[in-house]
Amino acid sequence: MQKTRVLTGITTSGTPHLGNYVGAIKPAIEASQDANVQSYYFLADLHSLIKCQDPRRVRESRLEIAATWLALGLDTDNAIFYRQSDIPEIPELTWLLSCVCAKGLMNRAHAYKAAVAENEATGQQDPDKGVTMGLFGYPVLMAADILMFNANKVPVGRDQIQHIEMARDMAGRFNHLFKGQYFTLPEAVVDERVEVLGGLDGRKMSKSYNNTIPLFAAEKKLLKLVRKIKTNSLEPGEPKDPEGCTLFQIYAAFATPGETADMRRRYLEGIGWGEAKDELFDYLNTHLREPRERYMALMEDPGHIEAVLQKGAERARAEAAPLMDRLRHAVGLGRFI
Amino acid sequence: MQKTRVLTGITTSGTPHLGNYVGAIKPAIEASQDANVQSYYFLADLHSLIKCQDPRRVRESRLEIAATWLALGLDTDNAIFYRQSDIPEIPELTWLLSCVCAKGLMNRAHAYKAAVAENEATGQQDPDKGVTMGLFGYPVLMAADILMFNANKVPVGRDQIQHIEMARDMAGRFNHLFKGQYFTLPEAVVDERVEVLGGLDGRKMSKSYNNTIPLFAAEKKLLKLVRKIKTNSLEPGEPKDPEGCTLFQIYAAFATPGETADMRRRYLEGIGWGEAKDELFDYLNTHLREPRERYMALMEDPGHIEAVLQKGAERARAEAAPLMDRLRHAVGLGRFI
Repeated sequence: MQKTRVLTGITTSGTPHLGNYVGAIKPAIEASQDANVQSYYFLADLHSLIKCQDPRRVRESRLEIAATWLALGLDTDNAIFYRQSDIPEIPELTWLLSCVCAKGLMNRAHAYKAAVAENEATGQQDPDKGVTMGLFGYPVLMAADILMFNANKVPVGRDQIQHIEMARDMAGRFNHLFKGQYFTLPEAVVDERVEVLGGLDGRKMSKSYNNTIPLFAAEKKLLKLVRKIKTNSLEPGEPKDPEGCTLFQIYAAFATPGETADMRRRYLEGIGWGEAKDELFDYLNTHLREPRERYMALMEDPGHIEAVLQKGAERARAEAAPLMDRLRHAVGLGRFI
Repeated sequence: MQKTRVLTGITTSGTPHLGNYVGAIKPAIEASQDANVQSYYFLADLHSLIKCQDPRRVRESRLEIAATWLALGLDTDNAIFYRQSDIPEIPELTWLLSCVCAKGLMNRAHAYKAAVAENEATGQQDPDKGVTMGLFGYPVLMAADILMFNANKVPVGRDQIQHIEMARDMAGRFNHLFKGQYFTLPEAVVDERVEVLGGLDGRKMSKSYNNTIPLFAAEKKLLKLVRKIKTNSLEPGEPKDPEGCTLFQIYAAFATPGETADMRRRYLEGIGWGEAKDELFDYLNTHLREPRERYMALMEDPGHIEAVLQKGAERARAEAAPLMDRLRHAVGLGRFI
């Protein structure tokens, strides 16, 4: 029986923060340990070029993300872990899919429509102002990412369901036009319970709000950032509401249920904000110390990370190359003999 | 001193006909013999997928075109002759260029605008009806074809000038954003004298009019087709006007100036259409016999053609791979060490 293939892309344009960890990295690493699943994790570095034209940032982010996932125990013997840009079959497949993908489909993509809406709202003459062909066409690249490995399931946020539907559309159209079962139709898996962590200012922790706490910030930096988390003006001794409190939420995301219940009681008893911050810092610092040490060691050894990714690329291409060969012949390309 | 680099793509969706030979193949093969020029000729088979979803047609056309160019004496020691789909760096570069190419540029491309205009003329609700992402975005692929080899000059028809301007735009934008002279800005070379041959029905000889005479039609077939060329109802003995006469025009495109002057005189003296057709057939048949024999032999030996194209791909990739490596690093991709 063939294993279910689950594919996850990680955009490489930022430094992993606590919010990424809780909402995406931790559940993905846990899922990768399921022996009934063949997982694919890839650094989506071609995608990162759409928004980031700072080469230093792209380069660093790729290294930081790879080091983070490895430090947290991604099982690279079980999961296939690779860099998108190491698989030349992916841009090649992107072109093949472009030739069966209706432009109308892309006209209706959320990210493009949002860009147009923003231009219209700001009174731009040209609705396409600032829109590149990369931004407009990236659902085709994303379809290639998925179809290249015939992924059965793709865990996504609600805003990404549309892209999976587009990938299904292209897959179905290609299969129909070229009369074969070349592609599996992927399914979106939406985890409704995905935990969204608050950031320094109480809004969702996100690179775009500049309110993040890097997952592997050094001890001093971590303390400084935890102390910056916004709280209200209640004095020590006054009872505090744990609900809607960013400090408490972050604590709960890391602690055991018992520890969380305990902390809840201390909020109601009137723990001071300073004390609550020190507790959170201690907790995070204690629990992140080991993976942080592994992370720091990995960041000092890019050669090792490179070797891991090369091994992943080799495994990925061992699947991509024969499929691409079949696809080339299906459309009339390939060698003459 | 570096040689001027001249790049020519050949779309692989038809069988070469007399019109292709006179208008494009003959001048290109002559140009390839210029020792001051480094020529690149490629079978644009990725482009052919935009309009042709018949794999057999794509496959045959690639073979026929390669055999034609080789039979006519393309000097593959001097020129670099390759198949676009053998160069994985080209789709990869296409993605990099997509990320610096404004969508607005593509909105203004002739081929796309023509498709929209046709939809509007036929009362289609959706102006993008039938437009694929391949059709919409192919000027980006064409820019990658050109910039990949830093071509200085690209011989094109007038309708293609716009695409070269787009390639210049992307090249300039990439150079600017990533602070380097990565790409040469290509120039369009428009030969205003390009000869357009008439077809069987007197209109321009073109695959889309289904009025072509295949360049290497077998003898019987060639005779049959020449006899089908449309003439007027003037009787033998009546003087005939060589101007605007397809028969005469085809003859003149192949014959020497002396032979042409001679035939012109015979028109004025009232040569019969049957005789004129026999003369044209004899002339074509005599002059095409040798290359046709080479063509037939090549068509019987796809392994030889494949070997020639593989050698070409190797030479092309020897230039494409190091440039692509530089480009990857420029945008923040590439290996960590």
